[in-house]
Amino acid sequence: MKHHSFALTPPKGWNSWDCYGATVTESEVKGNADYMAKHLKQHGWEYVVVDIQWSEAGAVSSAYRPFVPLEMDGYSRLIPAVNRFPSAEGGKGFKPLADYVHNLGLKFGIHIMRGIPRQAVHQNTKIKGTDVGARYIAKPNSICAWNTDMYGLDHTKPEAQLYYDSLFELYAEWGVDFIKVDDIADSQHYGAHIEEIKMIRKAIDRCGRPMVLSLSPGPASLNDAAVLEENANMWRMTNDFWDIWELLYDMFDRCYRWSKNIGPGHWPDADMLPLGHIGIRSVDGGASDRYTRFTRDEQITMMTLWSIFRSPLMFGGELRDNDDFTLSLLINEEVNKMHQEGHGARQVYRHEDRVVWQSYGPDQEVYVALFNIADHEQTVSVDLDQLGVDATKVESITDLWEKETLSNVDQTITSHLRPHACQLLKLVIKK
Amino acid sequence: MKHHSFALTPPKGWNSWDCYGATVTESEVKGNADYMAKHLKQHGWEYVVVDIQWSEAGAVSSAYRPFVPLEMDGYSRLIPAVNRFPSAEGGKGFKPLADYVHNLGLKFGIHIMRGIPRQAVHQNTKIKGTDVGARYIAKPNSICAWNTDMYGLDHTKPEAQLYYDSLFELYAEWGVDFIKVDDIADSQHYGAHIEEIKMIRKAIDRCGRPMVLSLSPGPASLNDAAVLEENANMWRMTNDFWDIWELLYDMFDRCYRWSKNIGPGHWPDADMLPLGHIGIRSVDGGASDRYTRFTRDEQITMMTLWSIFRSPLMFGGELRDNDDFTLSLLINEEVNKMHQEGHGARQVYRHEDRVVWQSYGPDQEVYVALFNIADHEQTVSVDLDQLGVDATKVESITDLWEKETLSNVDQTITSHLRPHACQLLKLVIKK
Amino acid sequence: MKHHSFALTPPKGWNSWDCYGATVTESEVKGNADYMAKHLKQHGWEYVVVDIQWSEAGAVSSAYRPFVPLEMDGYSRLIPAVNRFPSAEGGKGFKPLADYVHNLGLKFGIHIMRGIPRQAVHQNTKIKGTDVGARYIAKPNSICAWNTDMYGLDHTKPEAQLYYDSLFELYAEWGVDFIKVDDIADSQHYGAHIEEIKMIRKAIDRCGRPMVLSLSPGPASLNDAAVLEENANMWRMTNDFWDIWELLYDMFDRCYRWSKNIGPGHWPDADMLPLGHIGIRSVDGGASDRYTRFTRDEQITMMTLWSIFRSPLMFGGELRDNDDFTLSLLINEEVNKMHQEGHGARQVYRHEDRVVWQSYGPDQEVYVALFNIADHEQTVSVDLDQLGVDATKVESITDLWEKETLSNVDQTITSHLRPHACQLLKLVIKK
Amino acid sequence: MKHHSFALTPPKGWNSWDCYGATVTESEVKGNADYMAKHLKQHGWEYVVVDIQWSEAGAVSSAYRPFVPLEMDGYSRLIPAVNRFPSAEGGKGFKPLADYVHNLGLKFGIHIMRGIPRQAVHQNTKIKGTDVGARYIAKPNSICAWNTDMYGLDHTKPEAQLYYDSLFELYAEWGVDFIKVDDIADSQHYGAHIEEIKMIRKAIDRCGRPMVLSLSPGPASLNDAAVLEENANMWRMTNDFWDIWELLYDMFDRCYRWSKNIGPGHWPDADMLPLGHIGIRSVDGGASDRYTRFTRDEQITMMTLWSIFRSPLMFGGELRDNDDFTLSLLINEEVNKMHQEGHGARQVYRHEDRVVWQSYGPDQEVYVALFNIADHEQTVSVDLDQLGVDATKVESITDLWEKETLSNVDQTITSHLRPHACQLLKLVIKK
Repeated sequence: MKHHSFALTPPKGWNSWDCYGATVTESEVKGNADYMAKHLKQHGWEYVVVDIQWSEAGAVSSAYRPFVPLEMDGYSRLIPAVNRFPSAEGGKGFKPLADYVHNLGLKFGIHIMRGIPRQAVHQNTKIKGTDVGARYIAKPNSICAWNTDMYGLDHTKPEAQLYYDSLFELYAEWGVDFIKVDDIADSQHYGAHIEEIKMIRKAIDRCGRPMVLSLSPGPASLNDAAVLEENANMWRMTNDFWDIWELLYDMFDRCYRWSKNIGPGHWPDADMLPLGHIGIRSVDGGASDRYTRFTRDEQITMMTLWSIFRSPLMFGGELRDNDDFTLSLLINEEVNKMHQEGHGARQVYRHEDRVVWQSYGPDQEVYVALFNIADHEQTVSVDLDQLGVDATKVESITDLWEKETLSNVDQTITSHLRPHACQLLKLVIKK
Repeated sequence: MKHHSFALTPPKGWNSWDCYGATVTESEVKGNADYMAKHLKQHGWEYVVVDIQWSEAGAVSSAYRPFVPLEMDGYSRLIPAVNRFPSAEGGKGFKPLADYVHNLGLKFGIHIMRGIPRQAVHQNTKIKGTDVGARYIAKPNSICAWNTDMYGLDHTKPEAQLYYDSLFELYAEWGVDFIKVDDIADSQHYGAHIEEIKMIRKAIDRCGRPMVLSLSPGPASLNDAAVLEENANMWRMTNDFWDIWELLYDMFDRCYRWSKNIGPGHWPDADMLPLGHIGIRSVDGGASDRYTRFTRDEQITMMTLWSIFRSPLMFGGELRDNDDFTLSLLINEEVNKMHQEGHGARQVYRHEDRVVWQSYGPDQEVYVALFNIADHEQTVSVDLDQLGVDATKVESITDLWEKETLSNVDQTITSHLRPHACQLLKLVIKK
Repeated sequence: MKHHSFALTPPKGWNSWDCYGATVTESEVKGNADYMAKHLKQHGWEYVVVDIQWSEAGAVSSAYRPFVPLEMDGYSRLIPAVNRFPSAEGGKGFKPLADYVHNLGLKFGIHIMRGIPRQAVHQNTKIKGTDVGARYIAKPNSICAWNTDMYGLDHTKPEAQLYYDSLFELYAEWGVDFIKVDDIADSQHYGAHIEEIKMIRKAIDRCGRPMVLSLSPGPASLNDAAVLEENANMWRMTNDFWDIWELLYDMFDRCYRWSKNIGPGHWPDADMLPLGHIGIRSVDGGASDRYTRFTRDEQITMMTLWSIFRSPLMFGGELRDNDDFTLSLLINEEVNKMHQEGHGARQVYRHEDRVVWQSYGPDQEVYVALFNIADHEQTVSVDLDQLGVDATKVESITDLWEKETLSNVDQTITSHLRPHACQLLKLVIKK
Repeated sequence: MKHHSFALTPPKGWNSWDCYGATVTESEVKGNADYMAKHLKQHGWEYVVVDIQWSEAGAVSSAYRPFVPLEMDGYSRLIPAVNRFPSAEGGKGFKPLADYVHNLGLKFGIHIMRGIPRQAVHQNTKIKGTDVGARYIAKPNSICAWNTDMYGLDHTKPEAQLYYDSLFELYAEWGVDFIKVDDIADSQHYGAHIEEIKMIRKAIDRCGRPMVLSLSPGPASLNDAAVLEENANMWRMTNDFWDIWELLYDMFDRCYRWSKNIGPGHWPDADMLPLGHIGIRSVDGGASDRYTRFTRDEQITMMTLWSIFRSPLMFGGELRDNDDFTLSLLINEEVNKMHQEGHGARQVYRHEDRVVWQSYGPDQEVYVALFNIADHEQTVSVDLDQLGVDATKVESITDLWEKETLSNVDQTITSHLRPHACQLLKLVIKK
């Protein structure tokens, strides 16, 4: 599994969906890339990802418009709409934009739907390297329930593999580093499209460029954990995540269940971070243009869970509109280190709505997160024995969000927490 | 519910599917109609139904061919392929063939898939009486799992109703008496398409011609029994029925569960009778060109169950190839009378694989069917008390298939039966 | 099916559960019977039903107490706890109380759990008319999920039938007219206990006394509609119904689905009426001692739906605490007549939260109920054509709850309705 | 998770179920232990496990007898039936038998059902260290569907934990090393009993003796993988496994899905090995007294899959009746080494019924198993690239069952295999 040599740590970046829906433009992508290069790159953020519908010239929001024409090349492959991505003119595709991102020292990603465009099938256009038309490789009733632009591919036809190969050949030419494939990890009528996942895996392996493969949407099934790990770098544990407490509350259970499946090159994904300025041209998640509806406590809770669990971190807001608090969530060195270098994340216990997680740092540090996910204040505590820590060997305990050192080391760590709040601690252990 | 004034008795006829799959031709339809007029009409058989894919010039068997062109008029309505139905030339549609059938004193039926042709949607062709194109009314991911020619319609668009209205206006012009709509009573991914059923009901009511509405495939859900009864004349209790004992065995339970929902104008449907010469150009049901694989006992068991339950009876074989035995199943006057004039059908009991059914005739006759659905011989009996019959008032007992009068009237009726065999009796009661 | 000669109209009565949970006493039963005889009998109310746990001397509320001793006779049959039912002393069982009720011109009913007492099984006590002990006929893992007093019976043992026979022999001696059997129409782990239903049917038939058989709890499955109709007089369409709007809202769909299964002797049951003073010694339904939480509009909506649908009507409150409004719901002659003598009830249409039902009276009256089940005011209307009524033949239209005659007869009946309110009309038709 | 310090390699042993059902006796256990000590101990086999129903004096086969009395001590704890385990007389329990097994250099295990005996609950007997009776801690409707001797425990009662503590205190006194708990990993009506699993984990941790915890039956759900790993040492992937090809065929998919959850101290369990002389006093698995119905090819296939996957290995037959072939399956040094010291097991690919697995040895050996699980002969091959092996560095390839060295090292390993057969190879790699 060569792909486990990519994404050795959980990917971090920006994705256009939460703020721009299906409509992001080149200048917005560049603006966010510039911001990332200036403010976030030194903190490990590197992927700039153009989400869905970049081939649709007339996209207006996060609501899809069936049967609209998409930009397509002579081999039935979608290409960027030039009105939205001017640098793509003359058939240059995303290469100029990828170059721009690369020149900033960052990496470039795109979103695709599994399959082949419906319009290609109906026009029966060519498939590169084959004698067949698009119609031959399409599965005529394999249509995504929520975006109906594509037909899935029939894996029993070798030409279907060749089409995927031709896609990734093109993406490699463009310089794509990250590919998010949609309607594939949990498709409404069919569950996971395992055979298409395998075709895409093979196409990436053949294209010669190490691209991170991210599968959407969720919830992926734990019954598919093995096949997902063997074919992808990340896969969604949930359906789309938005700034709604119930979705965050629910993520604790999902993280727990998936916690045995985390490792270098393969990352269960808690989905994008709906932080800062979102919904600018999107009507998903039950709201439109807004700052995140999460409270500050909830934002810290989310960042803590994602980071100790080691979910990929994809910021969803318009980066340039970040306030200081939002930015502070992204550049906390200690939290970032835990996310990138931690290991062995596990839920220590859950008693009703008190939850404790733990992981380990590279120098035997022990990270402990105490969460109050109830709607009322309560005290959450954990005994050092439960953490496998010998109290006499604890050199120091630091609160990573408050950036304070705790004065005492007791046998029991106790935190009185507001509703939906958490405390994240680092214990330095004598060797 | 005006439609309960049609089909006051369970419809009887011939359907092209079991013998000709998707490929029947005009001359074959006429040939079967001629046979029916000559041999069956006087026994109440009247519908001649052209099953699926009559718009496809190149249909070759019961296997569908995605993306092939279909014959269509200027209003996105499918019309007969002239190579298969020569009388349809010049835009005359099925009118000449319907006239032919009507002139024989019979009735004419056709099959349609719910929705609008995919090709109409992709060409965005016109919808009669509207300013919109086909694309506007299509549900872009509502595609049948097994035949992908059509898109379902979006009932929230008034123009979708107008499209269905335009279809039935055309069918009324042709003289259609019976319409079998497919992918609608149990659609693989969606269950019943209730809203499309209601649109079709309304379109028929508006067209001014009393057409029997038959919904396929099954199994329809008993949870939908009310809405089916209120909108259709018949609906399938099962997926496609073929000449396989397990399917026939299973029908006993289905008939029992649906036995409270039988009545004038609304008939739970046990599906077509795969009798005689079937599979001529079909590869369904696990076999091709053959005489029915049912034994004679099984054929009688099927005819008995369908008739006492009052399922619609649609013969599936090539009528002209009937042998005497097959024909004898269709022209038994007493059995036909029970089917057409009986009422109150109920399963008296089922003990393991012994089953007894009962119904009543118009003159207080009591019909009793004793079934042995085990794989071994056994005796099946029923006490007259269980039938609500006073032994002293029984004038005679006749075996309707053997056409023999039983010599004695005992308190208990007992029948020693071969595997899969049955006995069907009529008890005449003194008034 | 002899039992369809009982309960030719939907039963009406009082049941102790909603007000007294598992704890009702003889004097409370008598008090409610007295009230019924005085105020309700002339309006057709007749059944007085002692609900669950009458064998438990120490019952304290609607919460069950596992493993407490129950009163039992020498044949493993539960008998009334004498501290709660003093007239039962000396082994007289419910006979004296039944006599009391009968002397008022009313009928007497009791509740039982299916099966045999756990304590009988563990003591292996006798089964009347057999050589076996209780243990022999018990199904050792067939225990109700919410009341664990009993084991279900193993229908493969003839002695299990004999036990049920012995129960109903006893109940016939007592003079029981109505039997509510619980944990049988929808049992949490097993669905319907069909074989036990059949044993009980047989036992009632054998006991020689016509007892109405009522099966609980629901939701019964429409897949079992046939077997329920053939064995019982009424069966629950839902789990327990309480004074909660969502449960009432939901009942509209259930009534619609079951509307084809209503008829003399067999009545889908919308459950008891939680009206007036309820929860006196009960903690079910999310509340305790109270007047019904339903608004007056909701109460009328409930009474209208139950009555036009022809559900059994079992009042759940302490009758003696009825206020005038509550009483008025029970003694409306016109509504009662529709409930007892109507037929052909059907949902005319449902558009979102506007619902119209219709039924017919014995003299060709047409009953129409217009419901607004939205949370906001709206207008609900119905065209006389939809009701199959010729406007020129309408003699009068009367509002049955307001007891007013409408001044005009228009082609369309229109009602502007408060949230959760309804209007119930009777149309008298010229012959 | 201290328990991950036990069972660092997958446990190997003998279990009485497949041969003796619910009836094994002390002398049979000793006889098998003697055999193990003599023939198998040096090959790593060590556990001797007494399966279900050792408290039932009158057990006769694998069929359970409800309500029979079980041997029990004064604290509601089951103890061995002395007629079957004479050394247990005088309240010595399993201590003498455990001592016997320990003296052979082996380890001793027992089976229990979760919960507390039904008879204890009905007699309301004492719970050690508490003031409450058995009735207080029982969940009165938590009864196993297939063995009804016990009630589950109510984890909300602290005394329920104390009961489990008292059980494991006793088992520690006896010297139990391995505990198989039943009706807990997949209970028919309830799924996994998570709270009882946690109570048992805690009780073992408290008892001070490191006992391997094995949970039955399966199929355990992958959704519970995290909680199983955190509380148990092994858990069943399937319902009971027997000598039936379909069950073995099915195990390939189960092993694949669970392959990410294997590790020191926690082992997904493919269930016992129904090899040699089985069914001696058992009627499970569709047969009674017999030699295994698996062919030799199937036996090798099973041993290969279990061993490369690293399932626990529990021999189910009467060891003393082993023939040479059966014994040869257990003492193959190379296969045993792969099972005990391998790591990284993964399915390399599955194409229809051709399956290849791979794992790694401690010295960089690569193990490869090629399986033909079709019903016909076929060739199964794998390219060294798929194994991540550089052909130029392969020193040797050995067939571990045939004990032959392959003459050539080609880029592709190819094996022509009989139906249900496999080839197991070891590749030694130059460092």
